[in-house]
Amino acid sequence: MSSTYGENLKLSIFGQSHGPAIGMTLDGIPAGLPVDLEKLQQFLSRRAPGQNDWSTPRKEEDRPEFLGGLLDGFTCGAPIAAVIYNKNTRSGDYDNLKNCPRPGHADYTAQVKYGGFQDAAGGGHFSGRLTAPLCIAGGLCKQWLEEMGIQIYSHIYRIGGIEDDFIDPVNPRLQDVPLSFPVINAKAAKLMQDTIAQAKSRGDSIGGTVECVVAGLPAGIGEPMFGGAESRIAQIVYGIPAVKALEFGVGTDAAALPGSVNNDPYTLENGSVRPLTNRCGGILGGITNGMPLIFRATFKATPSIATEQQTVNLKTGENTTLQVKGRHDPCIVPRAVPVVEAAAAIAVYDMILGNTQTNRRK
Amino acid sequence: MSSTYGENLKLSIFGQSHGPAIGMTLDGIPAGLPVDLEKLQQFLSRRAPGQNDWSTPRKEEDRPEFLGGLLDGFTCGAPIAAVIYNKNTRSGDYDNLKNCPRPGHADYTAQVKYGGFQDAAGGGHFSGRLTAPLCIAGGLCKQWLEEMGIQIYSHIYRIGGIEDDFIDPVNPRLQDVPLSFPVINAKAAKLMQDTIAQAKSRGDSIGGTVECVVAGLPAGIGEPMFGGAESRIAQIVYGIPAVKALEFGVGTDAAALPGSVNNDPYTLENGSVRPLTNRCGGILGGITNGMPLIFRATFKATPSIATEQQTVNLKTGENTTLQVKGRHDPCIVPRAVPVVEAAAAIAVYDMILGNTQTNRRK
Amino acid sequence: MSSTYGENLKLSIFGQSHGPAIGMTLDGIPAGLPVDLEKLQQFLSRRAPGQNDWSTPRKEEDRPEFLGGLLDGFTCGAPIAAVIYNKNTRSGDYDNLKNCPRPGHADYTAQVKYGGFQDAAGGGHFSGRLTAPLCIAGGLCKQWLEEMGIQIYSHIYRIGGIEDDFIDPVNPRLQDVPLSFPVINAKAAKLMQDTIAQAKSRGDSIGGTVECVVAGLPAGIGEPMFGGAESRIAQIVYGIPAVKALEFGVGTDAAALPGSVNNDPYTLENGSVRPLTNRCGGILGGITNGMPLIFRATFKATPSIATEQQTVNLKTGENTTLQVKGRHDPCIVPRAVPVVEAAAAIAVYDMILGNTQTNRRK
Amino acid sequence: MSSTYGENLKLSIFGQSHGPAIGMTLDGIPAGLPVDLEKLQQFLSRRAPGQNDWSTPRKEEDRPEFLGGLLDGFTCGAPIAAVIYNKNTRSGDYDNLKNCPRPGHADYTAQVKYGGFQDAAGGGHFSGRLTAPLCIAGGLCKQWLEEMGIQIYSHIYRIGGIEDDFIDPVNPRLQDVPLSFPVINAKAAKLMQDTIAQAKSRGDSIGGTVECVVAGLPAGIGEPMFGGAESRIAQIVYGIPAVKALEFGVGTDAAALPGSVNNDPYTLENGSVRPLTNRCGGILGGITNGMPLIFRATFKATPSIATEQQTVNLKTGENTTLQVKGRHDPCIVPRAVPVVEAAAAIAVYDMILGNTQTNRRK
Repeated sequence: MSSTYGENLKLSIFGQSHGPAIGMTLDGIPAGLPVDLEKLQQFLSRRAPGQNDWSTPRKEEDRPEFLGGLLDGFTCGAPIAAVIYNKNTRSGDYDNLKNCPRPGHADYTAQVKYGGFQDAAGGGHFSGRLTAPLCIAGGLCKQWLEEMGIQIYSHIYRIGGIEDDFIDPVNPRLQDVPLSFPVINAKAAKLMQDTIAQAKSRGDSIGGTVECVVAGLPAGIGEPMFGGAESRIAQIVYGIPAVKALEFGVGTDAAALPGSVNNDPYTLENGSVRPLTNRCGGILGGITNGMPLIFRATFKATPSIATEQQTVNLKTGENTTLQVKGRHDPCIVPRAVPVVEAAAAIAVYDMILGNTQTNRRK
Repeated sequence: MSSTYGENLKLSIFGQSHGPAIGMTLDGIPAGLPVDLEKLQQFLSRRAPGQNDWSTPRKEEDRPEFLGGLLDGFTCGAPIAAVIYNKNTRSGDYDNLKNCPRPGHADYTAQVKYGGFQDAAGGGHFSGRLTAPLCIAGGLCKQWLEEMGIQIYSHIYRIGGIEDDFIDPVNPRLQDVPLSFPVINAKAAKLMQDTIAQAKSRGDSIGGTVECVVAGLPAGIGEPMFGGAESRIAQIVYGIPAVKALEFGVGTDAAALPGSVNNDPYTLENGSVRPLTNRCGGILGGITNGMPLIFRATFKATPSIATEQQTVNLKTGENTTLQVKGRHDPCIVPRAVPVVEAAAAIAVYDMILGNTQTNRRK
Repeated sequence: MSSTYGENLKLSIFGQSHGPAIGMTLDGIPAGLPVDLEKLQQFLSRRAPGQNDWSTPRKEEDRPEFLGGLLDGFTCGAPIAAVIYNKNTRSGDYDNLKNCPRPGHADYTAQVKYGGFQDAAGGGHFSGRLTAPLCIAGGLCKQWLEEMGIQIYSHIYRIGGIEDDFIDPVNPRLQDVPLSFPVINAKAAKLMQDTIAQAKSRGDSIGGTVECVVAGLPAGIGEPMFGGAESRIAQIVYGIPAVKALEFGVGTDAAALPGSVNNDPYTLENGSVRPLTNRCGGILGGITNGMPLIFRATFKATPSIATEQQTVNLKTGENTTLQVKGRHDPCIVPRAVPVVEAAAAIAVYDMILGNTQTNRRK
Repeated sequence: MSSTYGENLKLSIFGQSHGPAIGMTLDGIPAGLPVDLEKLQQFLSRRAPGQNDWSTPRKEEDRPEFLGGLLDGFTCGAPIAAVIYNKNTRSGDYDNLKNCPRPGHADYTAQVKYGGFQDAAGGGHFSGRLTAPLCIAGGLCKQWLEEMGIQIYSHIYRIGGIEDDFIDPVNPRLQDVPLSFPVINAKAAKLMQDTIAQAKSRGDSIGGTVECVVAGLPAGIGEPMFGGAESRIAQIVYGIPAVKALEFGVGTDAAALPGSVNNDPYTLENGSVRPLTNRCGGILGGITNGMPLIFRATFKATPSIATEQQTVNLKTGENTTLQVKGRHDPCIVPRAVPVVEAAAAIAVYDMILGNTQTNRRK
């Protein structure tokens, strides 16, 4: 009910930040799909911590061990299962926080829900570390989508007050964006990095927005109403910790646009129908229209900050303050980019699996 | 897979805009819950068309006929089923549109997905009319939530460029907002109505944003990851036609806020924990924290406009233009307000049904 | 959670025996499938009451009204919805039973579960009458399976102590069994009818077994473990009221057979693999093997009998006796035959919808 | 879709017989439930191979390693995950079988479904070895049911032609049945062991039936129709390899019983309602009636036999014969007893989790 996703595939994610391991099972995948483990590792390394100034110094190799579902480089039809053992755990960092919920984290809500039995170390099951198994599943789906000619790209749309260049929604060219810090405009990238560095130097953190594009997606994918592409993508993207807003196409700007501007007119191009614009983000009525599917997910600032914050001591029943020690990202957005891609890949691949062939009226 | 929703309750919505009837079944509801049908009718009438200047002149009473699940004013444990027969259908209005997909509507994507077999009249199953059965289910859930002290309020946050007053997210007072045109600030209300009237007079339409508050919700509701309150609400809200953005708490502004501002500090009030602010919109780690749950859904402008638009003729294979006749809302937002409340009510009631009691650590 | 079924299609059944109507919604069906309503009516009439000596004299036409999902004789991709209004209700028959649960019925368990709020008239939602909407859904699936060359047949395997002829499980010829009383051996049919008549004359009832064959089913349908063909069929067949046993292939006889007899050896026939026997009922590891899929469902005797039975008065808290008046089948089995076929058709069609194409290893 | 189970809890099972590991994730379990790992190990050891004459000599400790969900002897609310690494694999035993499907096994159906990409060694994901993770999940659920006063017992009802004593369905006393070979009647136990030994000495195998009792279950558990206790139990029990029949209460005998005998009359005992008999196996209308829930699962003979069998060579396209070498149980039934209990425990615990509190009519 909680950490499972999918209508056709069934993804189940488990583990706690400082428990023995994190992992996933992915059921319902056809047999005979090729799996390139090296490529998967490259994808996972984009999310892995400890690589540069703007991410936590906690070092984890994040090398998944596959326990089932693969054979000789192909899926074998059995559920795919993979684990990553937690090596670099330092649960002592969290000892003094046990009774004092960190503002912005799930510590307090977990305490209410699980009555004190929750694994609080490092946020337990609520930790951003759980996005690693999401990336295993997503990295696999991404490979299978690529086999079908469907590519997923993304860039950092905004960090703090700094925005990247706008993409052309009809023909978004994100192929050449550097993967290490995926921003189109090099000046904006520098400013974003400065923004992160400043937040860090203040003992603070900062939020941002990731924009994701699914290119090469055929028209006709998705279902009406609650099975629509927006609904399916939203359910999984909001499962990524710290996401607080999700927009498709023009998103919140849709409030300000008149229909005459917001509607995407059609034209014929070499005999086939093509929308001239892409304000809808590639989805109408929950179903893809053949344009690039475009969405943006906004992440709040990392709640863990070195600055003193007001909280309560649940044990003594007194007001108190805390400073979050431990190792934390001053801005989660750069590492969140592949996670958003992974979520998109899983949602899209799930919809494609459920896409039944329709007769054509003669 | 498509028009069904719910982990614990099971909602299934059916019907087409100009078919015999629209309706819903709602399974998994406990027996013995009181149902006030008059109150439900008042709720449904907030969504019903044909009432004023800013909605379609199509007149439908939208009076549901209950076929099962109710007995003597209480739920009886059997699935609840209700239908609304379509009376005022004018499918002739759509004849010339059969081969020319209307920009912004699902006509083209439905054509691709259903191969010409879809019911195209009035958008068929993709019509906003399908929100009527959603409001039947939601109106019932709303009543049951009220029995538990949980209230759902909303207001029009924005239409076009006009914004309503901001609410205090810790103590949002929306009880007294007029239901007929739910805006806090009377001047803003007038300007919004002018905006709609202007769009209409130009043969155009306009979008907007609805803000919804679930008040009185206890802490501890929701599940981690994909079962989180954001994910559950997002899946159903994105099932409402025309929604293109969804934000929780500060929403897209989270990108610009540092952690020191965005985090909600805790204090003790009469011995119980209370967040001092509510930037998170009442949800941390997918689980409610006892603050009002606050979200905003942005609707695009009604795609049906009298202005000439460019499209294609699928039959002749030629570019052409069309003007959408028929009866349409120049702005869907005022009528969408109860629909958003209905969606919220269903999602929240579903989560409450799935909320298992936890032992408390001594 | 209760009256819904399906992994790929989503069936939802509603209504109570003496409520306004019974019905179903069937979501997830591809567009463009032909629907022959006359053929459906013929199928439904096999289940309809009031036709002969061995069924209840309650007369209901059981003519479904389709509210959505069909257009010009084809599915249109929207959820299919149909209702049957209850006309010949006589809830007065049940007045004296309200407080005295009928042995063998769900009266007592419904009372415990629904706390007195249940619709008790005629068994409410637990009534065998709810198999009519199951037959609407099943009758449709049966037509679509026939389009693929998959036929569903069945016969009465046993009533009381009387058994029909055994079928050849490799080549079961049930096409010519009369639909009115589907028994292969005419003498056995006569004896079964005598058995029913005798039970009726004693104010009693009798049970029996239906055997069902799905012929023409390709190999490779179904999933391992809980998604296996047995699991999927069992979930829906046990949803038919009064079913108390379900067997596949040799069924309970499997306990007595050594592996050397029970295993089905393979041979090559015109270059393709064919099992020589069919003890497994066409399923190995949850997946079809290309043989006819064969199962048997055993129904208990109709609990409603004119004979005096011991029960309790829940209101007065005293032991008492009752005689069930009203109109009842002395043996439900003949009318259950199409219901079992319907259940099989739904389960099989659901599995086929979920059957993803696999690459073939070169 | 395949190896997942549960409406309220979500069980996902993975692994292949000779792959790196087998395991399970179990999501949706409340926090704060105690877990006795030693007791779990004792339960698992009842299923473990290599212990006596009637089971395979393959030795596996079957000691699960918990990767998540447990903390200090309690569930912590996060998904529970456990793996058992496969140590004693001998995939070489299966080399000559790759192209020659073993009769009675899923080799051929897996080949058709997975197109040659399946993991064939030891039956891969179809192996009975996958019941070990089922027993992890079931052993945990069993402990939590015991905390509520619900006990699960079972005995071998029949092996080959030998039957155990009948139990009294109103008051089944199975507490004292020896766990090593759970048969009530010691003479019958001896004859069953002889039957197995004879089959083994002939290079053959034999089937049997397990009878399972859930005692102490309150009335009111389960849902109508497809969510009924029979449906829920059937889906999981038929997920156990080799089950070919499932009966509740009198089971197939219900065909022969008149209603006057089959109905369970009610009486009042110390002011509460009690059925006098228990032919229904504790379930009416899919809902428990407070009597012991009783069902029987019939297992076919182990398909792996040393006797020569006819099969085909898929590579050469010729008829051939094979003898199954490797290590196999001559009768799977004794080791299947805890597996059936595990399946029952999971299904019952799932239903209890979904059981919503109902108001009582005053």
